[in-house]
Amino acid sequence: MKREIRILGFDDASFDKFSDRETLVIGCVFRGGLWLEGVLTDTVTVDGDDATETLLRMVSRSRFRSQLQAIMLDGIALGGFNIVDISALAEKSGIPVIAVMRDQPDLGKMHRALRKLGKERLIPLLAKAGTIHNDGKVLFQVASISPEEAARMLRMTATRSDIPEPLRVAHLIGAGIGKGESTGRA
Amino acid sequence: MKREIRILGFDDASFDKFSDRETLVIGCVFRGGLWLEGVLTDTVTVDGDDATETLLRMVSRSRFRSQLQAIMLDGIALGGFNIVDISALAEKSGIPVIAVMRDQPDLGKMHRALRKLGKERLIPLLAKAGTIHNDGKVLFQVASISPEEAARMLRMTATRSDIPEPLRVAHLIGAGIGKGESTGRA
Repeated sequence: MKREIRILGFDDASFDKFSDRETLVIGCVFRGGLWLEGVLTDTVTVDGDDATETLLRMVSRSRFRSQLQAIMLDGIALGGFNIVDISALAEKSGIPVIAVMRDQPDLGKMHRALRKLGKERLIPLLAKAGTIHNDGKVLFQVASISPEEAARMLRMTATRSDIPEPLRVAHLIGAGIGKGESTGRA
Repeated sequence: MKREIRILGFDDASFDKFSDRETLVIGCVFRGGLWLEGVLTDTVTVDGDDATETLLRMVSRSRFRSQLQAIMLDGIALGGFNIVDISALAEKSGIPVIAVMRDQPDLGKMHRALRKLGKERLIPLLAKAGTIHNDGKVLFQVASISPEEAARMLRMTATRSDIPEPLRVAHLIGAGIGKGESTGRA
């Protein structure tokens, strides 16, 4: 695997779950774990159901589209409980997807939240995201890529912390926009 | 000079000069030319006169404040013709300032624009920014630092292009927020 492959990492900006209807999504195109090459932005509805569609639109608009080797997500939700259908994202974009988590997700809590929001139809996406793998540093789920290949990409891009650079930097930008200053996540 | 010194680079987000009253300012805290450690945001008035004050507020709020070895600016204006008083910024923050330019600024055009905007009082800041130095890659002006020391910092942080990383990345973020996708500046 070339160290300079292009990877697109997504995270959302900090938002106020009581007052914000939308939040910004930040996409960072990274060359391996080495340097930032482009930044994309768009919005998703807080606790809505447009996350998959928004990410597909962002990928399709990017001039780096044809060169992307993977899409990385911080978990499988953006803007609160706006769940991403990672297999649909991988299939429709033609790009493998790796969803990265620090901790085991609380699926019971997510089920209850989705029910409370009247978004029961998103619940199957939680199971559809498949097995949660563990590479010793982070947990991850995959679509259109083997767990072994995904683990290699995670290791290669986590040059500054346990978190792959495309996600670490998307998080810093999202936090900086939402709060005025990012708090470290190293 | 340690390769991992902290430097804060500022740029503005893309804006529509006919319709936007304010634009976002992005600050990137970098460890040398190596990696992004924090992102700050605030706003300035388009063609206003609050740029110096905004940057001072951003620096003073940053948790990295006491560790910053330099502030880098993309030119000496933000949000159109909102001119930064680089010596006041350096003196009041206690941090040296380096303003970086790709091309020789058109001072005649800037004078005319400031007069047209009724901001004649900002015109002296253009001369106050001092001699324009040339390190063979970029042009720069300095406050509270020697041109030699500034040139060393520029070389050390320009790891991916002629532009120091704190400014290259602040520009990518600003363009990505303003337009939905940054255009390369490498």
